[in-house]
Amino acid sequence: MSDPLEELRAALGDAALVTEPAAKEPYRRDRALDPRPGMPLAVVLPETTAEVQAVMRWASAHGVPVTPRGAGTGLSGGATAIEGGVVLSTERMRAVRVDAATRMAVVQPGLLNAEVKAAVAAQGLWYPPDPASFEICTIGGNAATNAGGLCCVKYGVTADYILGAEVVLADGRAVRVGGPRLKDVAGLSMLKLFVGSEGTLGVITELTLRLLPAPPPARTVVAWFDDTERASAAVFAIASRIRPSMLEYMDRTAIGAVEDVLGMGLHRDAAALVVARSDDQHPDGAEVASMLGAFTDHGAFETFEAADQSEGERFAHARRIAIPAVERLGPLLLEDVGVPIPLLAELVAGVEEIARAREVTIAFIAHAGDGNTHPLIVYDPEDTALTERAHLAYGEVMDLAIRLGGTITGEHGVGRLKRPWLVEQIGDDLLEVSHRVKRALDPQGILNPGTIFAADSAASDDSAAPDEGAHTR
Amino acid sequence: MSDPLEELRAALGDAALVTEPAAKEPYRRDRALDPRPGMPLAVVLPETTAEVQAVMRWASAHGVPVTPRGAGTGLSGGATAIEGGVVLSTERMRAVRVDAATRMAVVQPGLLNAEVKAAVAAQGLWYPPDPASFEICTIGGNAATNAGGLCCVKYGVTADYILGAEVVLADGRAVRVGGPRLKDVAGLSMLKLFVGSEGTLGVITELTLRLLPAPPPARTVVAWFDDTERASAAVFAIASRIRPSMLEYMDRTAIGAVEDVLGMGLHRDAAALVVARSDDQHPDGAEVASMLGAFTDHGAFETFEAADQSEGERFAHARRIAIPAVERLGPLLLEDVGVPIPLLAELVAGVEEIARAREVTIAFIAHAGDGNTHPLIVYDPEDTALTERAHLAYGEVMDLAIRLGGTITGEHGVGRLKRPWLVEQIGDDLLEVSHRVKRALDPQGILNPGTIFAADSAASDDSAAPDEGAHTR
Repeated sequence: MSDPLEELRAALGDAALVTEPAAKEPYRRDRALDPRPGMPLAVVLPETTAEVQAVMRWASAHGVPVTPRGAGTGLSGGATAIEGGVVLSTERMRAVRVDAATRMAVVQPGLLNAEVKAAVAAQGLWYPPDPASFEICTIGGNAATNAGGLCCVKYGVTADYILGAEVVLADGRAVRVGGPRLKDVAGLSMLKLFVGSEGTLGVITELTLRLLPAPPPARTVVAWFDDTERASAAVFAIASRIRPSMLEYMDRTAIGAVEDVLGMGLHRDAAALVVARSDDQHPDGAEVASMLGAFTDHGAFETFEAADQSEGERFAHARRIAIPAVERLGPLLLEDVGVPIPLLAELVAGVEEIARAREVTIAFIAHAGDGNTHPLIVYDPEDTALTERAHLAYGEVMDLAIRLGGTITGEHGVGRLKRPWLVEQIGDDLLEVSHRVKRALDPQGILNPGTIFAADSAASDDSAAPDEGAHTR
Repeated sequence: MSDPLEELRAALGDAALVTEPAAKEPYRRDRALDPRPGMPLAVVLPETTAEVQAVMRWASAHGVPVTPRGAGTGLSGGATAIEGGVVLSTERMRAVRVDAATRMAVVQPGLLNAEVKAAVAAQGLWYPPDPASFEICTIGGNAATNAGGLCCVKYGVTADYILGAEVVLADGRAVRVGGPRLKDVAGLSMLKLFVGSEGTLGVITELTLRLLPAPPPARTVVAWFDDTERASAAVFAIASRIRPSMLEYMDRTAIGAVEDVLGMGLHRDAAALVVARSDDQHPDGAEVASMLGAFTDHGAFETFEAADQSEGERFAHARRIAIPAVERLGPLLLEDVGVPIPLLAELVAGVEEIARAREVTIAFIAHAGDGNTHPLIVYDPEDTALTERAHLAYGEVMDLAIRLGGTITGEHGVGRLKRPWLVEQIGDDLLEVSHRVKRALDPQGILNPGTIFAADSAASDDSAAPDEGAHTR
């Protein structure tokens, strides 16, 4: 068996191996639409940890790069296929087991976030993290990116709900990190290191999740502003005073795009819409009153409490579909920049200035309550000049966030598309030390090369990273 | 300047250097009373990050091991001095800056946990993590061990409140990891890796802490049992149904020791005391009713709600002083084992059996609501046979926890004393991979050698680890 592919086929069986070019095509890139994906040798569809181990043993024996992949909803190019590599899709790894008495769930990575939520809700429990894409993204991808969402402002991010994991290492060994224990400090926090490592340190094959009791009912407050600065100031005031369970922001472009889709009567001429929630159960309802007061004090031209859960949910849904709605205007370069909340107004104004200077449309939506924002840069691949200006703006928004003491990515991950900016944020020394950790765990550099770290030229043909040209830096 | 110590003196100045044997003596061990501490060459007392950098540059140039140290309240021998090494005490690093508007605090590591709590409370805010030793332990030590406490059952552990840190690496470089951002996934989660690494990967010189609004008022419920199994069952029932903000356990030995100190009228003949709190603000008071019901259903011979905050605090205080109270019976070997909560009764029974078989006194206290327990083994250094039996019991309790799928340490850390058992819990592969990370960050092995990882013989004279003899394994 000198043909590596035949060796892989022998190890996994035909059914778990995709080699037809047309069938491989959908696995070449994620929703970031990296313009230069490679054509993988094969896509593998393991069902068990043992099969993932077989893939990694094979890959390390042959020095073949492996791109772990959930549902491909990533927005940073973290699942771009490598030419001649293997895409490892977790789509068939879908087991789930809920233990209501200890409020934990053990899940395989291919389950959708919404399926996890549903499985635990059936037992009266709640898995909080809620990326806007929760109906189409996998829990494994959530763990790999340490995904956020709308409720994170009060309830934290994915990492906060992961108690344990099984991880297959680059050399094919499987290790268990953490476990069904609420407190465990035995040894280095390797669990927390694997979470958010975007498939560069290992392949997560199982997760033990911490759950909460069913969520308390929430009250939704809506506010409309004709000035973005006043809207940002209201957000800061609320975040300083109380702990809202949601605090979301959309600008005029996003409002219009969503209204085009939903026709729910949103004010197209407003500069900003803020949707906030409180699930505080105190009978005095002080949080809702505090939010309404803050909106009024900061000049909202209209503010009200949603009449009921259903009306509140309509506004939350409007926010959640903002990215696909804006995508109807054209392909997007998706930002994920975050800043300390007091600097939110400055970020909003700076992004507006970049849009003006570069003559591009940038819709601005945000998990405003935790300072995490998504400027969405619209471009047109047919229009080379516009596309180039869009890419310049893409980098300038990240430069701005870094200047404001912020981050280039709050919840989507670095992937390939933001990698050139990582060093500006974290500095040479921390990047160098992180790279040492990467090499310690993946000495051949076969795990998702090009994501977070530049691909080691020794490990693949990818030394000219495919995104270096796409973004002008 | 060929004398290394003179070089260090030149770099730091006389005032920051302790070399007198008598003055060094209190820095040789922590509260775990490791029986074989080394005599350090010097104790250094830096005030700034730059001074810590100077120490590490000097240490790496000369290959001198460095033991980072907070207040020395550690219970696992994580701050045992190395013969010929340097103890780096953070006691003079005491700056604190609170930003109420963003609910964050930036602190140096030498501040006591209680001082952090007080500084933020002065601005109406709350830093939740509350080790029982909060009045005497440092925030830097809390971060180094990822310390827990009583409120963790609802509010999480130290790592959950650390947004950023400044860390001095083994070679003297200082890096900033994370920062004042509620969501940030740029690069590997190095921040979470440094937290809980017990000084083996770097020296934390600054922390950015996330704060909460002032804590809501809590109601305290007390229950007395004449059977430990029923008490454990009640704990499990409560932890399954609601989210108590405290759920603590003490056995007869601990109750008696505390009563000796406080004389507050505790039932000396009870088998177990459970102290629970709810800070749920729902007006129906359902959580308190649920807890009282669970205690009654599981056969408590007495259960009641504390009349007021002050009575509730008396019971919480009784639990907090349990370790020093039991210490009056003799020196302790302190366990920190955790198990999944359904197995709490089995752990309690197993520890009782070990105490009987080894003829040693073991007091049992626990953060029962998260399955984290502290069997306290009393010994007498004058009685060699008893001391040997106590050490055997110490290992047997950890073996039992591992057999039950638990952890050898929930919140104190591995230190030196639990190191021989770490591999049994996490396995050869994960230990090997963790060691690779350690070497990647500290190739000379100068950072707290002997803690978590066996000291590399190349890096120090410590190849015969001091605890190997003390514990029979």
